[in-house]
Order: sequence, then C-alpha cells, then structure tokens
Amino acid sequence: MTILESIRQPRDLKALTEAELGELSDEIREFLVHAVARTGGHLGPNLGVVELTVALHRVFESPADRILWDTGHQSYVHKLLTGRQDFSKLRGKGGLSGYPSREESEHDVIENSHASTALGWADGLAKARRVRGEKGHVVAVVGDGALTGGMAWEALNNIAAAKDRPLIVVVNDNERSYAPTIGGLANHLAALRTTDGYERVLAWGKAVLQRTPLVGPPVYEALHGAKKGFKDAFAPQGLFEDLGLKYVGPIDGHDIRAVESALRRAKRFHGPVLVHCITEKGRGYEPALAHEEDHFHTVGVMDPLTCAPLVPSGGPSWTSVFGEEIVRIGEEREDVVAITAAMLHPVGLGPFAERFPDRVWDVGIAEQHAAVSAAGLATGGLHPVVAVYATFLNRAFDQLLMDVALHRCGVTFVLDRAGVTGTDGPSHNGMWDMSVLQVVPGLRIAAPRDADQLRAQLREAVAVDDAPTLLRFPKESAGPAIPAVDRIGGMDVLHQADDPEVLLVAVGVMASVCLQAADLLQARGIRCTVVDPRWVKPVDPALPPLAAGHRLVAVVEDNSRAAGVGSAVALALGDAEVDVPVRRFGIPEQFLAHAKRGEVLADIGLTPVDVAGRISASLAAGQGLAKQSPDAQEHQA
Amino acid sequence: MTILESIRQPRDLKALTEAELGELSDEIREFLVHAVARTGGHLGPNLGVVELTVALHRVFESPADRILWDTGHQSYVHKLLTGRQDFSKLRGKGGLSGYPSREESEHDVIENSHASTALGWADGLAKARRVRGEKGHVVAVVGDGALTGGMAWEALNNIAAAKDRPLIVVVNDNERSYAPTIGGLANHLAALRTTDGYERVLAWGKAVLQRTPLVGPPVYEALHGAKKGFKDAFAPQGLFEDLGLKYVGPIDGHDIRAVESALRRAKRFHGPVLVHCITEKGRGYEPALAHEEDHFHTVGVMDPLTCAPLVPSGGPSWTSVFGEEIVRIGEEREDVVAITAAMLHPVGLGPFAERFPDRVWDVGIAEQHAAVSAAGLATGGLHPVVAVYATFLNRAFDQLLMDVALHRCGVTFVLDRAGVTGTDGPSHNGMWDMSVLQVVPGLRIAAPRDADQLRAQLREAVAVDDAPTLLRFPKESAGPAIPAVDRIGGMDVLHQADDPEVLLVAVGVMASVCLQAADLLQARGIRCTVVDPRWVKPVDPALPPLAAGHRLVAVVEDNSRAAGVGSAVALALGDAEVDVPVRRFGIPEQFLAHAKRGEVLADIGLTPVDVAGRISASLAAGQGLAKQSPDAQEHQA
Repeated sequence: MTILESIRQPRDLKALTEAELGELSDEIREFLVHAVARTGGHLGPNLGVVELTVALHRVFESPADRILWDTGHQSYVHKLLTGRQDFSKLRGKGGLSGYPSREESEHDVIENSHASTALGWADGLAKARRVRGEKGHVVAVVGDGALTGGMAWEALNNIAAAKDRPLIVVVNDNERSYAPTIGGLANHLAALRTTDGYERVLAWGKAVLQRTPLVGPPVYEALHGAKKGFKDAFAPQGLFEDLGLKYVGPIDGHDIRAVESALRRAKRFHGPVLVHCITEKGRGYEPALAHEEDHFHTVGVMDPLTCAPLVPSGGPSWTSVFGEEIVRIGEEREDVVAITAAMLHPVGLGPFAERFPDRVWDVGIAEQHAAVSAAGLATGGLHPVVAVYATFLNRAFDQLLMDVALHRCGVTFVLDRAGVTGTDGPSHNGMWDMSVLQVVPGLRIAAPRDADQLRAQLREAVAVDDAPTLLRFPKESAGPAIPAVDRIGGMDVLHQADDPEVLLVAVGVMASVCLQAADLLQARGIRCTVVDPRWVKPVDPALPPLAAGHRLVAVVEDNSRAAGVGSAVALALGDAEVDVPVRRFGIPEQFLAHAKRGEVLADIGLTPVDVAGRISASLAAGQGLAKQSPDAQEHQA
Repeated sequence: MTILESIRQPRDLKALTEAELGELSDEIREFLVHAVARTGGHLGPNLGVVELTVALHRVFESPADRILWDTGHQSYVHKLLTGRQDFSKLRGKGGLSGYPSREESEHDVIENSHASTALGWADGLAKARRVRGEKGHVVAVVGDGALTGGMAWEALNNIAAAKDRPLIVVVNDNERSYAPTIGGLANHLAALRTTDGYERVLAWGKAVLQRTPLVGPPVYEALHGAKKGFKDAFAPQGLFEDLGLKYVGPIDGHDIRAVESALRRAKRFHGPVLVHCITEKGRGYEPALAHEEDHFHTVGVMDPLTCAPLVPSGGPSWTSVFGEEIVRIGEEREDVVAITAAMLHPVGLGPFAERFPDRVWDVGIAEQHAAVSAAGLATGGLHPVVAVYATFLNRAFDQLLMDVALHRCGVTFVLDRAGVTGTDGPSHNGMWDMSVLQVVPGLRIAAPRDADQLRAQLREAVAVDDAPTLLRFPKESAGPAIPAVDRIGGMDVLHQADDPEVLLVAVGVMASVCLQAADLLQARGIRCTVVDPRWVKPVDPALPPLAAGHRLVAVVEDNSRAAGVGSAVALALGDAEVDVPVRRFGIPEQFLAHAKRGEVLADIGLTPVDVAGRISASLAAGQGLAKQSPDAQEHQA
C-alpha cells in the first residue's frame, strides 16, 4: 500500500513524518500525471499545489474549518486527500467532477469554477460564523491570476474592513492564470517575490536616503547595520497591508514545513491575514514545465511519457478557424483590435497577438473590464473584438448593455465554448448567452453553423460600427460544411419540401440535428422546411411570412429553452399576427452535470429522434392546427 | 450678466481672475440650489465638485482632452460650463438629462450612470489614442465610493500596467457614496487624508525604529532632522503607488489654485497618475451639510430655503413597506440578515440596520460581492436578503446564477425601482430583471401588485431556504390595494366574466392597467379574465389549463417584452400543447429617454387604451382563432 492509499481522510496526514510527506508528494504527482493523462483534465495547476494542499489539511480541520478553492480546477489533490482516489472516470458521466462538488464530499464548498469568487464566499462564511457565534477557520485559496478580477478586490475591501474577523487568504502565486498574469498587481506581486522583507526595506531606505541630501551615508550605514532587527520587524507588505490585511510571506509553496509554519502563524492571528505562497505550475513534470504557453493548464487524453494526444482531433477547431480569420481581417483593417480576459491562446488570439502585438490586450481575469474598455476603444475610433468563453460573458452583462450597447459602440464579441460543453460541468456550459442577451437593444447575434459561416459572419460582424455584434460557436471541431439550397431574406434554407407542414428553425450547429430530424419526419410522411436564420437576433423579417405557410414551427437551439431564440421567434410571430404554434427545443431549466457533450444532449432530449418525436406528437395532439387562413397572412404582410 | 452667464464654453474660464473664480463658484452654487429645488435632482454631489470642475476645464481642453465623469450625477457643473444653462426641464421630457449625454454635447462621453465604469472607459480611450497615434489627455473623475467597485480595480490594474500611457485619475474623495464609504480602501484613503507625506514617513520611521532594537533614538533623530528632504521625496502613496500609479495629493478640492496646480503636474507626467482631491458633499449649502444621512444626494422638488417638499407624496412608498416588514421578519427570525451595496437608506434597510446593527452589511458599490457573500452567508446557515435597485442587479447576474442558484442557496433578492423609473433615464430603468433571470434554474420571482402582496410575498420568499427568491417592485408609492375575487392554483383572479374570450395576465403593478383594459374591452363586448400570477417564475401550472379556455392570452409586464414573463407563459403553453395565441405587452427593445414614468408608459404603448386596442385588433385579425378543442385541452391536462 502506498502512503497515498493510506490517506482516507485529512486527519491521516497528521501522523506522517517529514520524509513520508516528501514521499507522499511524489506519489501524488505520479498519480496525477497518469490519472489525468488517461481522462484529460487540469494537470499543471494541480501539480503546483501538492505541498500546499497537504499543508492546509495538516494545519486545518476540514470540514469544521472551511477550505475554499477559487476556480476549483486545482482541487484534485484535495480530492485525493479527502477520500476520493478513483479518478478513472474523472469529468466523465458518473465519475468525479473536475471541480469541488458538495455531492461528492462534505469537504467541498464552492462548485462554481468562475474565478475570483472564493474571497467573497469566505467573507460570507466568516460573517455567518460571527453572527451564529460559531468557531472554526475560513481559508480561501486564490491564484494570483484571480486577484486581477474585480470580485477579488470587492471581497478584499470587505474582508480587510473587519479587523477582528479571522479569515485566511492563501495566495497561490504561480505568476500565471493560463498565461502570465498581467497588470499593476502582477508587478507588485513580483516585487514582493523578488525582494524579501529585509532586502526590500534596505533597498527602499537606500533609495530614499540618497534622494535626501540632509541625511547621508551614515544613516544608511546605520540602517544597514540593523539587519536582524529589520528582518524581524518587517515583511514586504505594501498594497495588502495598506488595505488592512496582515501579510505573511513570501513562502516557498513547495516547502511543506515553511507553508505549515506560515499557516500556523496565520491561524493564531485574530483578524484577516494573507499568506503569499510561491508555487510552480506543472511542478515535477518536465513536459509541463517545458510547455511555455500554459504549463499544461489542461490536457486531453495523452501518453504520459510522450504527451502525444491519444484521441484523434476531428478537424479544425472552431477556435482555430476564428483565430486565422481574425488575423486576415486584421491585415485588411488597421482599426481592428482584440481583447482577451487572461485566455489569449484558449480563445484563439495567439496568432493575432503574434502578428499585431500592439493591437491586442490581455486585461486579466476581468470580463467587466474587457467589455467596458472595449467601449472606450470603440469610442476612440477602433473596432475591438472581445473573445471570451460564452459562460464568462455573464460577468460582463451589465457592461455589454450599459457601456457598449447604450453608447452604440461597434464592438464584436466572439463567444467560444457556446452551448453544451460537457465535461467541465455546470459552470462551463455556455447555455445562457442567447437568452440573457435578447434584451440588449441593437445587439445583433450570429450563430454560425459551419466554418465557412463563421468566417463570413465574423466579417459581417466587424463591418457593423454603430452597434454591438456577437458570434457564438461551440467547443471542439467544426463539422463538415452544410450547404444552403436557397435563401429567403437573410436566412439560408437548408432543406425544402412541397407543401411543407413543419418549419424547423436551426440555430447554429443545431443545423445537422434539424436536417436529421427532417429526414426522420419525412419518413413518417411529415414534410419539413429547415432554415438557418444565420443572424438570430433580431429575428429576420422574412421569418413570420415563411412560418405562416406551415402548421408548426420548431426552434432548435443549443441554449436555454427559456427566453432564447425560440422566445424571440414566438414574439416576432405574435407581433405579425402569425399564430402558428411554436415548439422550443433547447436546454431545459437546470444545471447540467459533467458528461460528454453527446451524452448531455441525449439526456436533455436534444437529438434528432427526440426532436422528430416531439414534433410528431404535437401535430397529432393538435389535429385542429390548420395552416393559417390567407386573410391572416395578408394582415401581417 | 453674471459671470456664470458669460461662460459659453470652457475656454471662457481661462481669462478669469482668482477673485472672479471665487465669484463664479458662488454663482454656480446659488444656481444649483435653486435650479435643482425646482425640478428635483442630484444636489449634494454637484455642490461638492464646483471648484474641481472649474479647475478641470481650465487645465484641460475639452473635448480634445476627454473628461470622463464616473456615475455622471455630478456633471451638472460640467453642463453649466459647457453651454448648458437651461435647467428648467432638468430630467424632464425634452429637458437636460440628469447625466452626461452625447446628444446634448460633444463634451460628454459616458451616459451610463452605473458606478465604477469611468476608469475602464479611460483605459480604452487611452489605448485607442496610442494605437491611432493621437495626442490629448484622458481624465477620469471617480468618487471614493466608486473605487469600492470591482470594475475600478480591474481598470486600475490595467492602467497601472502601462507606465508610459498617460492617463489621469482624479479621485473625488468625499468619504461617501450615498452613505460613508466602507472597507479597507476607505480606511486607506482616510490614512492618506489625515497624515500628510512628511508626517506619515516620520510616524512610520518612528514606529519601525522603536521596534528595531539595534538602531535607536539617534537614527530616529537623524531621520527627524531630514524634514525638508523627506517632504520633497515623499508623498503618501501606499496602495496606488504599489500598483504602479503615480500619486499626487491629498489636495483640498475646494481650493481652485491647489487643484489646478496638481492637475498641471499630472498633465506633465507621461504615465498613469492619480490625483487625490478631498471635497465636501453639499458644500456651501447648510441644509445639505446638516443632512447626516446623505448630504442631499438627491432631492425632490422643494423649497430651497425651508427644504420642505413641494410635491405631495402619494402614500407609503414600496420601499418603506419593505423596510417595515423586513424589520418584523427580522424580529421573528434571528437568521435573517441583510446586505446593501452602498445604499442602506435608499433601499429601505435603515430601520433594519438600526434594529439589528450586527445583521446588516454595506459591502460598498459592489453588487457582485453582495451576491457572492450572500451565498457564503446562506451556506453558513443564515438567510440573507440582498436589497438593490433593479438596474444594478445586472452587475451580479453571474454571481446570482453561479454562486447562489447553482449552490441552491436560500437568498432573497429585493429589487426596488423595478420597471420604468423615468426621470433618471436609460440606465436607471429596472426593465431587464424578469427577462435576464428567466434562465436561472430554481429561482422564484414575485411581482407584488400592492403593498399587502409585497408583505405577504416577502414572507413567502424568506421561507424558501434551498433556492434563491426575488421580489421586484417599482419606484414611488404603492397604490391602493387590489382585491382578489378568486384564486386558481397560486394565482389571484382579479376579474372574471362568463364565457371569457381574453385572458389578461397582469404582472405586478400592471394589475391596474389590466383591470382598466378589461373594462375598455368589456365596453366593446369582449369578455375578459384578469389574473395576477403573483409568482411569475416558474409559471403557475394552473395557467395553461386556464388559458385553454380563452381565445387569446395577453401578458402585460413592466419589463422588457423580449424574453420576459410573456415568453415564459408562451413556453409553458406550448409545452402543455395549449396553442392559444399569446400577445406580449411590455417595454420594447430600446433604451428609454428620461421623462416621467407616465409619459414613458404612454410613449411605449403601455396604457389601458393601448392594451385594449391591440387586443381588439388581434381578435379581429384572427377571426379564425377559436377556443382550443376539448381534445387538446384533455391532452395537456
């Protein structure tokens, strides 16, 4: 039995000797590399927090003490130490979640993997303990990258305000989120890292005194002589101390003894304290360390020795199609610039950054700033393209509405990972955008069905300079091209039939589902039209008259059923007095557990068989549903 | 002609003598008090920025230099100095906006009055200037309160990162937003205010040296002797300097010469610089200064001498009904706690805070933190009530979804100023919530129609401990009670008729509009049912069967037509195979210019006459619309 296998619960860690702790760390790294290579998952971040996690569980008593993981993708070690060592189905249906999960363990608190939230949770939990008169520590572990998010600041401002409310913030500083962390804060952390307390004070003293003619070298010498005294009295504190947080650090995050000692000091302190740990993403695994781009932030299924991918890719990814086309556009238009929120490469902006380094900005994990600074850029005469994962745009809803749309700014939002993404679980599905954004005046939304459409619609989008535009496409590879057989208004007709009964409105990648459903219906003698509206907001004016020639309209979208494109189509039909019944197919009102995309779609009834079946049933139930009278069609024309 | 009247454009300020500037400031204050007393508006904030605004326009060349007002309610002085001195219809239809407005003036940039945005705009504008090789300064004026918002942090982090990109941040520090500013940042600003550079360094030196046994009094004395040298070398910088921002201050914001001098220094500096100005909200107007609660942040129409309101109030406000009931609930349940985002009194939490000071938190202008810390509080065993203006909840959408709803936290959101608010213009209407929040799994939304319902539904909401709940109600006074004549499922029937044709679904305060519309329809021989669903999300299961007995369903809501309650009702009907046509009445997809609520409702067709007229027309157009066949009704039952 390995030491790791002997750890059934955190308290089992306490009896280990220093040598055993070293062995345990090695075993954990070995386990992680092989387990994650088998399923895919977050590797680099977890290799970086092995000693930190062990130390946390030795110093604190989870779950009485609450340990909160910001973003949560670095919780694999925590899982291993809290009774969860079966990683065989990690992120797969029925297997362990890739993030903390309350269903899995009482040691888990935050399931949401959007960054910068843990400090806010910690503030709430600490306040609740105070009101209820309960004991126990609250410890939030947050990356340096997550500190660039506004929520972290809001929380620190609140945490620091209550000097007598104990709360421990552990900054896991690996100088990166995906990519190196940016901004003034990163520079400050670097200053803290590279100059220890004593050296910093000396350097400061020397600089000040040299600028100060009335005191001279003797005072500097005196200060210099005060070495030991200063070392005790001083830690480099700066920003955090100014806010009112006690600062402990910097600590070598791979030295368990040093981390434990710092955590024990923090534990004894009766107020808010920040422990600054320096760690290395990918620690102990050469291929990860050698990978400059992101130190193996996430990996797919791969050979752990060669790191060669073991699952063949299905053709060019949506991301790369976007990444190439935006470079071409950038070459044609000098005013096109790009913004990423700490995810330059994952959203496909790497090539653009290489080609136009002065026209791209990484704003940190700061979607709000991505959107509001885009409004400023547009007002300043440029056309910004803001590329983010669909789920993270929720962070910038107010800014898209109030800063971009209200001011009629020509900003193009490009949403990668839209729709059901699958294995990352509930907080990574991009299933809200086409619903939430329906209310935004002037916003135009496109959902390309294939790579050609993505390229074409991206160009249509950046051509709009007096209103926001948005493109959304899913994860993974763009499928084969789907040709149009006709065009009505701005809509592509993908399938036609004589005297059709059902109009299938196919949103983006749901085109193939709709075409297959149409075939199934055809086999039952039900004739269909399939259209891809291309731009789903606003609804194409040609849609209501087209709908009027059918008995039923079905809108199929990879997005929430509530308030989505189906809702917009129904509204447009009602406004045109076209009362053909509408059926909406999409994601039901629920959070989706982790599983493969195909498994999720099957679970929620978003397959061709489901769509065709439901449409048949509706037609059967509504025998009275005739096509609308010619009179009514005339009225709306 | 007064000096003020002689100022037609900012450059007219440059020729004035110091004495004339003093006179001008007095004239502006006199003007503001009388003008705002006549129309209502933001008084305290504008009285506080008179000298600051004059100095800005003397030092910079607007619009070539861009002056950005964060929140914008303190732009009245700016308006007076940029050719806008007719305040007679301030905030009224066709009159001046209460915020900057690009339509009014080329000197205005940001119209959005949500706080903490100006720094992000400034970052974008400065980046655009750099890319386009343009000259000119970008100056953002931001309150100390707005610095508690996460967007401000995200922006500062970006601004500070580019040491060679000039950008001036003016902190207008009056120690308050509505109420005194909270948190670690406020404490730090206070430290900067109360200790000037020299004293701060000395105090620091003394403290350090006394903790340092190896150096003693002689070194301290040497430092003390270095008075003048230190004074030049040092300004109190702390947090901002640590981020990488040059700090200038603190400056007396009412001393035009001092402010000008600081701004000129900042203008010469080729990088990001922060100018810290101390101002007094309500300056120069005794009644404002004496008003502890908010220094006359906003006033209604009033007598400028006695400050007595001149427009009679229409009965108890929705806010006060909530404020009283939540105190009663707090007395019955120790676990009920409250959160405000810097608006304790405006949202009605004043009495609760007085009664339970340890159970309420002002988190700063930080809606994200309000929501995420509420998730922590709920997980810690309490039931938080988050009270915010409806429009500001957009800032916390991701947190409501991902932190509160995903974790099934019992948190009650109370949205004041929901629907059309009117005079504050496009960014203050609370017209998005019932649309945007349709996608949130498990969330329950109530729209009370009168004060009794508000009290009852607030109690129903806080009784839910495993999911978020939300109440929304409008500005101003709750009207008379509207009795129910029957109940179907959880819905109140407000009006009934034999063999009805039209089902009016009345959302919240739209109950009275619907009842009047029903009367108008009745007069035309069209029989109506009017129901108030009370809880509009989820749709009451009794609604589809009820709808099936009518020829047309009309949903009337004080909310976006897109994606709102009408959409949810249509979806529920489709799911139940009830294909009665639905017509949605609400706010069209546009931003609403400032005007009185009644004027806006008339403009957008949300009056009883409009609703009745459209319903008649629909019925006439759709002669073929029969009630659904009994078969279909059976199917969905």
